[in-house]
Amino acid sequence: MSNNKTVDIFLNPKSVAVIGASKNPMKGGHRIVYNLVNNNYKGRIYPINPNSEGELLGLNFNKSVLDIEEKIDLAIFYVPNHRIPQLLEECIQKKIRGAMIEASGFEEVGEKGLEIKEQILKITDNFSKIRIMGPNCMGLTRIDGDSDAGDNERGGFFTSFGVFSTYKRGNIAIISQSGMLNGGYLMYIMEKYPELGIRYSCSIGNKMDLNETDFLEYFIEDITVNVIAVYLESFKNPRKFINLCKKVRKIPNKTIILVKGGITSQGQKATLSHTGAMAENSQLINAIIAQSGVIQAKDFDELFQFARTFSMMYNENKVMPKYGNVSLVTGSGGAGTVVADITAQYGLKFPNFNDKEYDILVDLYPEWMPPNRFALIDFWPAMEKAMTKNNNRDEVINEVFELLLNDEKVEGMLNMLFCARRFGGLPDYKKFVKTINDGSKPVFFWLIGEVESVQEVSKYMAQNNIPTFPTIEEMIKNFKILVQDSKNKNY
Amino acid sequence: MSNNKTVDIFLNPKSVAVIGASKNPMKGGHRIVYNLVNNNYKGRIYPINPNSEGELLGLNFNKSVLDIEEKIDLAIFYVPNHRIPQLLEECIQKKIRGAMIEASGFEEVGEKGLEIKEQILKITDNFSKIRIMGPNCMGLTRIDGDSDAGDNERGGFFTSFGVFSTYKRGNIAIISQSGMLNGGYLMYIMEKYPELGIRYSCSIGNKMDLNETDFLEYFIEDITVNVIAVYLESFKNPRKFINLCKKVRKIPNKTIILVKGGITSQGQKATLSHTGAMAENSQLINAIIAQSGVIQAKDFDELFQFARTFSMMYNENKVMPKYGNVSLVTGSGGAGTVVADITAQYGLKFPNFNDKEYDILVDLYPEWMPPNRFALIDFWPAMEKAMTKNNNRDEVINEVFELLLNDEKVEGMLNMLFCARRFGGLPDYKKFVKTINDGSKPVFFWLIGEVESVQEVSKYMAQNNIPTFPTIEEMIKNFKILVQDSKNKNY
Repeated sequence: MSNNKTVDIFLNPKSVAVIGASKNPMKGGHRIVYNLVNNNYKGRIYPINPNSEGELLGLNFNKSVLDIEEKIDLAIFYVPNHRIPQLLEECIQKKIRGAMIEASGFEEVGEKGLEIKEQILKITDNFSKIRIMGPNCMGLTRIDGDSDAGDNERGGFFTSFGVFSTYKRGNIAIISQSGMLNGGYLMYIMEKYPELGIRYSCSIGNKMDLNETDFLEYFIEDITVNVIAVYLESFKNPRKFINLCKKVRKIPNKTIILVKGGITSQGQKATLSHTGAMAENSQLINAIIAQSGVIQAKDFDELFQFARTFSMMYNENKVMPKYGNVSLVTGSGGAGTVVADITAQYGLKFPNFNDKEYDILVDLYPEWMPPNRFALIDFWPAMEKAMTKNNNRDEVINEVFELLLNDEKVEGMLNMLFCARRFGGLPDYKKFVKTINDGSKPVFFWLIGEVESVQEVSKYMAQNNIPTFPTIEEMIKNFKILVQDSKNKNY
Repeated sequence: MSNNKTVDIFLNPKSVAVIGASKNPMKGGHRIVYNLVNNNYKGRIYPINPNSEGELLGLNFNKSVLDIEEKIDLAIFYVPNHRIPQLLEECIQKKIRGAMIEASGFEEVGEKGLEIKEQILKITDNFSKIRIMGPNCMGLTRIDGDSDAGDNERGGFFTSFGVFSTYKRGNIAIISQSGMLNGGYLMYIMEKYPELGIRYSCSIGNKMDLNETDFLEYFIEDITVNVIAVYLESFKNPRKFINLCKKVRKIPNKTIILVKGGITSQGQKATLSHTGAMAENSQLINAIIAQSGVIQAKDFDELFQFARTFSMMYNENKVMPKYGNVSLVTGSGGAGTVVADITAQYGLKFPNFNDKEYDILVDLYPEWMPPNRFALIDFWPAMEKAMTKNNNRDEVINEVFELLLNDEKVEGMLNMLFCARRFGGLPDYKKFVKTINDGSKPVFFWLIGEVESVQEVSKYMAQNNIPTFPTIEEMIKNFKILVQDSKNKNY
């Protein structure tokens, strides 16, 4: 079977059995069924539990998969580890092609777990009889429609035992060796960034059979995916991983971002107790990451912030910066200085204006405080001049934005904007957003002001794929990764 | 006059004249008077404007300081730069001892500004006749009481032309070469972190006369100040700055945090156009920072996050970590791995447990998944065991906290906590807070979960001086600076 057909068993099954389904809402075996039903899974669902009678959320319990007449594509396991071998045998007998095992207690717990693994290898004839995802995983999520879409549109295929209530379909796919990224943390991040669109999230657990490269290969070919966010504690097949990543470097609108756990010996000690992954050589890990040319993130928060940035840029078909020539528009000289320092530290530059652009700026500024020749624009003096003449403050800023968007030396724009209802009211941010998205350059904002106003502007910008950042450094770092990714591309 | 008496003219004047006071609420000269009145300044206020008649906020206008009979300690200027020399002469004639000049257009605008500066030097006889703060500054703020305290308690001395509505008195003093830190950004940060207590904020502008070292010396001796947050674009007197910082290293409960703007040539180009400060040698700057032993922050957000952390630790008299031996309590193995990596990168270690502590942990864990021997505690298996026995989940976490707080090998604690009302309800965070503050160790949290629950828990923790962080890396970095500061101390 081709790789993508195998992955399809897990991502797009037409029927699933939930082995270990439970009437007790506190149990994972209940919540998996609840997630499937509640999120509009269009296939058939069979709750399996030898100790349960009657119905679960309108579905009849069965004692065993063998009691079911219809074809079953996928079995989801939520049972104690020692029961898995026998239940797997029943699945094989039933000709089920995939088993997703959401139970822990395998390699990561030592000898006893290894014994069960050996049994599974034997029963499945090295996974030739049935393919396995996990164990020690939290299932996967496929989002076909936003949580607030119509009854027929919303949902997709949700097999986590964590429950998501708010979500949005988008162009990000997640591959994670930590269950949290298809559980509590994903729930958090989708609520924190309500505009963040997710297409898939796959918790691959111990990778006994299916591993990161299987899903990576699938997402590379899936045109609904632009950003692949990966958390790994080990590389199952480094060579294949590198080759797949290199493939992505030839695709203009696709980017892989990676958090690698266990890059220090302290981290490796931690991962050993978590997934049982073997310690890897730090130098080897660094070589793999360097060769793969992925964008590396430090922690989960950075992973999703980076993913959000690329996601927004791809949504708007922005032209990615290649040289790191950026501008800053600010109302504070101090902020200008700090941004100038940090951009320099990240290898970004403010280009010098040509005479044409400079002359336009000179007209906006008072004589006593001319503009810079380089693309760092402190608009305070220009605003003072505009106010003296009763010109509109926002008109000045918008003119500056238009100038920069049309200046071919500038590849993208960083901005500091003060947002407050007091002191002359909020800036005309909707107009700015229109100006910016009429252009094709990446434009980022660092917002300060009244917290409520900052949230209002930030939300509107996010809805229009313009990212805002809580700190100056994050704004700059997120621009830097766009440049880095362009440099890595070789199409 | 001693340094502190000079600074007292500016921080604690008994009477002020506002030169350039205006009836127009859009003008800075209005807002300065509004700020003084509205924030309960206990001294006398004299609005000065030759073109205004009648009253301003219940105060009579005067044409000139010379029309006032009573003594005036301080004159605050909000007038165009070219009018300043003549008005200064009047102040000198009136025997006013200090002038705070909130106008720009001096060194930073080139020749014309330098001319005015020369005039000022001559008129003041090199500042022997009157001391000057600024120009190109946004005044200063002294907070005596929280904004929501009683009418007689709230406020202090507010001379910015930015308006703050919500503020809290605390142990942080700010010295800044960017006006934003006594203006829009300070307003933002005080709203963003409502528990952040500020004592003083001084925008020192171009430092024509008074400079950072004058205020630094004052705050070092002021026992209401524990944390001094500094933003500088130039060092006026590097030797004195270093010596003052060295003094702080002998004071157990005082820390200086510095953002230095213009540490790259790109940043220096920016600062030149901002405050007119001369370019400095990068190596020299780094040597000054290294010798001073201050905590360096990268941007304004980091400056205030660091300040908040130290502020909270000093508020609770926490014992600062010296060796970097830290623990992690988490519900996710993946988060454990990433925290382990980043702690290692920041030079922090998880110590090994002695048998006594380890045996207590072993009892909490199921047989199939024993705890780590080192201080990284994934409580998930322990919670599963507790739930099987119908024991309380929070009891387990609290027991772990107590164990770690009493373990003398552990100097402080990092934690990941999942906060959600669904799935068994919010953790008993109030109990945890009590347990933590009965101890003397710094304890930090990275919170995830439902956004609203995260905010609720975060707020309560902040009110109790327990910092929470939006990312894993920030949590670790903020712990690292405590260790760094301890190592710098030599008392």
